[in-house]
Amino acid sequence: MAAAAKIQSFKCIIFLLSASIILNLYFIVNLYEGSEWNLSWSSKAAREAEAVAAISCSGHGRAYLDSQVFYGNQPVCECNSCFSGPDCSLFLPGCAADAESGDPLFLEPFWMKHAASSAILIAGWHRMSYRFTHASFISQELEKKIRKLHSITGNAVTENRFIIFGAGSTQLLNAAVHALSSDYNSSSSTARVVASMPFYPLYQEQTDYFESVDYKFEGDANLWGNASSDTHLVEFVTAPNNPDGQMNKAVLKGPYAKSIYDHAYFWPHFAAIPAPADEELMIFTISKLTGHAGSRFGWAVIKDEAVYQRMLAYIGLNTMGVSRECQLRAFKLLKVVLEDGGNNIFEFGYSTMKKRWENLSKIISLSSRFSLQEIAPQYCTYFKKIRPPSPAYAWVKCEREEDKDCYEILKAAKIIGREGKKFRAEARFVRLSLLKSQDDFDLLLHRLDELISKE
Amino acid sequence: MAAAAKIQSFKCIIFLLSASIILNLYFIVNLYEGSEWNLSWSSKAAREAEAVAAISCSGHGRAYLDSQVFYGNQPVCECNSCFSGPDCSLFLPGCAADAESGDPLFLEPFWMKHAASSAILIAGWHRMSYRFTHASFISQELEKKIRKLHSITGNAVTENRFIIFGAGSTQLLNAAVHALSSDYNSSSSTARVVASMPFYPLYQEQTDYFESVDYKFEGDANLWGNASSDTHLVEFVTAPNNPDGQMNKAVLKGPYAKSIYDHAYFWPHFAAIPAPADEELMIFTISKLTGHAGSRFGWAVIKDEAVYQRMLAYIGLNTMGVSRECQLRAFKLLKVVLEDGGNNIFEFGYSTMKKRWENLSKIISLSSRFSLQEIAPQYCTYFKKIRPPSPAYAWVKCEREEDKDCYEILKAAKIIGREGKKFRAEARFVRLSLLKSQDDFDLLLHRLDELISKE
Repeated sequence: MAAAAKIQSFKCIIFLLSASIILNLYFIVNLYEGSEWNLSWSSKAAREAEAVAAISCSGHGRAYLDSQVFYGNQPVCECNSCFSGPDCSLFLPGCAADAESGDPLFLEPFWMKHAASSAILIAGWHRMSYRFTHASFISQELEKKIRKLHSITGNAVTENRFIIFGAGSTQLLNAAVHALSSDYNSSSSTARVVASMPFYPLYQEQTDYFESVDYKFEGDANLWGNASSDTHLVEFVTAPNNPDGQMNKAVLKGPYAKSIYDHAYFWPHFAAIPAPADEELMIFTISKLTGHAGSRFGWAVIKDEAVYQRMLAYIGLNTMGVSRECQLRAFKLLKVVLEDGGNNIFEFGYSTMKKRWENLSKIISLSSRFSLQEIAPQYCTYFKKIRPPSPAYAWVKCEREEDKDCYEILKAAKIIGREGKKFRAEARFVRLSLLKSQDDFDLLLHRLDELISKE
Repeated sequence: MAAAAKIQSFKCIIFLLSASIILNLYFIVNLYEGSEWNLSWSSKAAREAEAVAAISCSGHGRAYLDSQVFYGNQPVCECNSCFSGPDCSLFLPGCAADAESGDPLFLEPFWMKHAASSAILIAGWHRMSYRFTHASFISQELEKKIRKLHSITGNAVTENRFIIFGAGSTQLLNAAVHALSSDYNSSSSTARVVASMPFYPLYQEQTDYFESVDYKFEGDANLWGNASSDTHLVEFVTAPNNPDGQMNKAVLKGPYAKSIYDHAYFWPHFAAIPAPADEELMIFTISKLTGHAGSRFGWAVIKDEAVYQRMLAYIGLNTMGVSRECQLRAFKLLKVVLEDGGNNIFEFGYSTMKKRWENLSKIISLSSRFSLQEIAPQYCTYFKKIRPPSPAYAWVKCEREEDKDCYEILKAAKIIGREGKKFRAEARFVRLSLLKSQDDFDLLLHRLDELISKE
């Protein structure tokens, strides 16, 4: 019996030892794989971010670190439009499809999928100074990434060009107007700022609002084609165009005509890249590239050093450059974009937008009341193939004689677009955004389907 | 022998079991304390941030996530001025003390000490939209923190006031000029923008540069005291004043005189808080509060709704609000500031600045060639005591008749200040910044000591 008991307890100890070693191995493997045990001061912020990301909003919303806190300490869900309730699970049945804004949330799922590579942890002492070590407001490492991005995408020439950052393309647009107008200072004549209709409303709103002694908004570019050759003209050229997706070119020529090329949508998501753009002054933004409209980050690619210097002065006196947090985020996001030569994000963006366009076109084709802009398939040097259209917006026309106010027609059917008049087009046009969240787009299709099936 | 061997191996197994259990306990305790094993997608960013923070720059510099990468993958140290070498350990012997800029790096050690509470981890999908859910460009949670901050500091009335955010006070200053000038639009007269000398040079540079049809910079406020009562005046009032630390008040009165109170330095670090400021339009910035000049975050507190609406329009058309990364960072930093009613940061800021002022005053008092501005001790409602001065800048005067260009006198002694002329003062004044890193300040004292000991 004593021997049997000994054997029994021996077996028991061997079992315990094995279990303990297995548990240790489990710990060690985890330690090695995650190596989070080396974390000290950063772990609190990391845990906070993961806790917020884990809040369930039913796929129809999300909570953020700076979301409102109603009860206790937990931030509340911010729901997509037409969804409600503490976890955004409640669909509001009579809700209108909002396709008004160009909010690029179609890219949100991409970043949720690339969570690990796109996250950044910002230390409390990160870049407190007004300037980078080389005394500028610009991150040289970010500038390198931007040049690399244009090189792999093939959408713009950046060799021997100056690059300047701004708070979105918004700030750079007026900085460019300012720089190109003061170019004429010697002659003391006012520059006429124009654009081809239909055009992005901000051009006029902004130019009117900040109207200086040097420039004045004058509307349609086509009315200035026969202006005397010494009239100073600054033309906004949007390519692809917002709202209609056409690859606009400057309509004004001559020694006193300058162009600002707004290339916000010149990415493989939205258009074929036929060749690298090589204009005097080109403006880009991450809003429509990575979808981070809230970050307010854009850049200009500039040939002429004098224009570059004037834009630098503008950004310096206006905001002392772009927020360092924003530059760090843009740096990280572009790092992810560049990791595989852009394939991941451009494939995702293009296939999402193409599918949305196909679905929308299919519904509209059943209607004789509404029509869409036509965009021809074109060879894309990025995808190395002829590709069908995938524009950011549908430029809808009400075809019936009596449907003069297309915005109101759609609104009555619970579809909110942006009025054609805002783009200086006829009221029979409306812009519908295809860029928003999948919820917004699905509801747009649903409301259109309801409307058209009644024809 | 067989029994002895058995006992031996039994002992050995017991020893292994004990060791294994101890190791298990160690893992379990760590797991419980750190709970980082719950981390998944955030751990890479956290590890990257800690790795960069761990790069040794000898206490005379720091590496950032977006610092330049020369060899391999490791970002290089960015050294304080006058330090060099891969780890910033090399002092450059003949180097001039640079006291030119108002870079508030004296607060950097505070944030290094509060690393865990001040870090933020930003997910790739954080706030991609143009707007917050309530359709504005402003984080409501951050606005709450700002109101709370003024309430605990007692430096400004915010009840029934509007708050607007800008890219540093820089953007808000011109937004305010714009808003207060267009106030007079009905009469179509140009507003005269003025300030009391000596004043912060940006007021003039910015107002001249963005000169619109509505306003024009006209220099010294005191020259406009007898202007006709219907002259439209906009006065910049800086309190405490940059450069001389005086608590300025508006010099112009009357129905057509409006003031923009720049309260960048109205924090317990730099001045006594005699009572909450209660002006029509007050501008604040985190640059001089937390030291995060690079973040570009400021706010205005506004009484009149019409002025608020015009400033909102300005910020909207200029940059579409402030970067969401920047707002999140400000939110987190203010959270740390508020945690203990501001005691930690205000004690740190005040004691650092007071000590610097004492050390500087002691050296200057040995000189008959140089003098400093005088600031009287005053009762501070925040510290609940009479407190000696601790200004952000020394406003140095060269007293000798022949020392007409004080900037050049100091420069010859390897001290770089900012010329009095830039503040519209006599050339016999120079501003020396006391806000920079400890390295910069120590070298400033050293160079001053060298200069004065030669007298």
